[in-house]
Amino acid sequence: MELLKKNVTNNVSLSDDEWQKFRQPFELKTFKKKEFLLREGEICRFEGFVNKGCFRVYHIGSKGFEHVLYFAIEGWWIGDIDSFTNQIPAQLSIQALEDSEVLCISKKDKEDLYDVLPKVERLFRIMSQKRVVALQRRVISKMSKSAEELYLDYIATYPQIVQRLTSRQVAAYLGISHEFLSKIRKKISKK
Amino acid sequence: MELLKKNVTNNVSLSDDEWQKFRQPFELKTFKKKEFLLREGEICRFEGFVNKGCFRVYHIGSKGFEHVLYFAIEGWWIGDIDSFTNQIPAQLSIQALEDSEVLCISKKDKEDLYDVLPKVERLFRIMSQKRVVALQRRVISKMSKSAEELYLDYIATYPQIVQRLTSRQVAAYLGISHEFLSKIRKKISKK
Repeated sequence: MELLKKNVTNNVSLSDDEWQKFRQPFELKTFKKKEFLLREGEICRFEGFVNKGCFRVYHIGSKGFEHVLYFAIEGWWIGDIDSFTNQIPAQLSIQALEDSEVLCISKKDKEDLYDVLPKVERLFRIMSQKRVVALQRRVISKMSKSAEELYLDYIATYPQIVQRLTSRQVAAYLGISHEFLSKIRKKISKK
Repeated sequence: MELLKKNVTNNVSLSDDEWQKFRQPFELKTFKKKEFLLREGEICRFEGFVNKGCFRVYHIGSKGFEHVLYFAIEGWWIGDIDSFTNQIPAQLSIQALEDSEVLCISKKDKEDLYDVLPKVERLFRIMSQKRVVALQRRVISKMSKSAEELYLDYIATYPQIVQRLTSRQVAAYLGISHEFLSKIRKKISKK
């Protein structure tokens, strides 16, 4: 639970008693490589904190292509917040890329935490703001940058994630073909 | 202030006293058509609630194209949350498309509200979650849908906004040329 504690206390300070109340409803689940936490169309019944491992969070478009929303490693929160919040079928699938561990909390337990610990409101208010910022940056970059710029940004921002991914996975995040990513890499290495 | 009150009480219930405390720091500002609330590169020092009018929130890419993140009408919140939260130069410009009114709150006043009214944590936690959901839907759609599908989605989701926009503005939101949008519209009308 140390990683979760660090993640939480980076955002709000909790007494020992508050931390015990906070951690109580989280359940540790393990996932083998290639196993799914969530499949598109299911209702997302948990929010998860990655304790170990790596996941890809992606959407399959109408033409069958896989579009990666993000990759999550240790210290990231995962889930389909749209499905979790509104209890509607998920648009996202979440698959383990390595043997992984996730600390999961249910919607009911999370709602209860808000009532028991007012600081949890602040915690998830701050975390949601950070997610808005991250998504806003993603939308702006995606709208206005070339694939080469997106690639350079991604390897600069998340070097610790990129080294755990195949180039096909990185290409699926950038929304380009594997072949096009190879061309970009060759072009960069010549510079 | 009625529209703001409705927006707030849709998310949390406030007593009369709490509402008075909440509304107190908001300042009504008026903007003439084409006037800017924020320009890219400035620090965003407010979060705003649109009381009247219409705004476009956009980013200018390295090639000089304008990419519209969203249009906001009455009842929407506007600002560059990345710049506002982190006090870094804005990536977004916000311009009035009509004579408009905005209720603005500063970062300092908003932080103070969290301390005075714990329910404000809940309010902005819920609102931030909704923004995450909206942005997640935007990213997924943008990654996986054709321009025609995006256009049909937009007019179905925001009919009250579309009718106030020129077709050039809608095209800038969809990330396509005005000519291409005309082709899509012709194709749809033939169906």
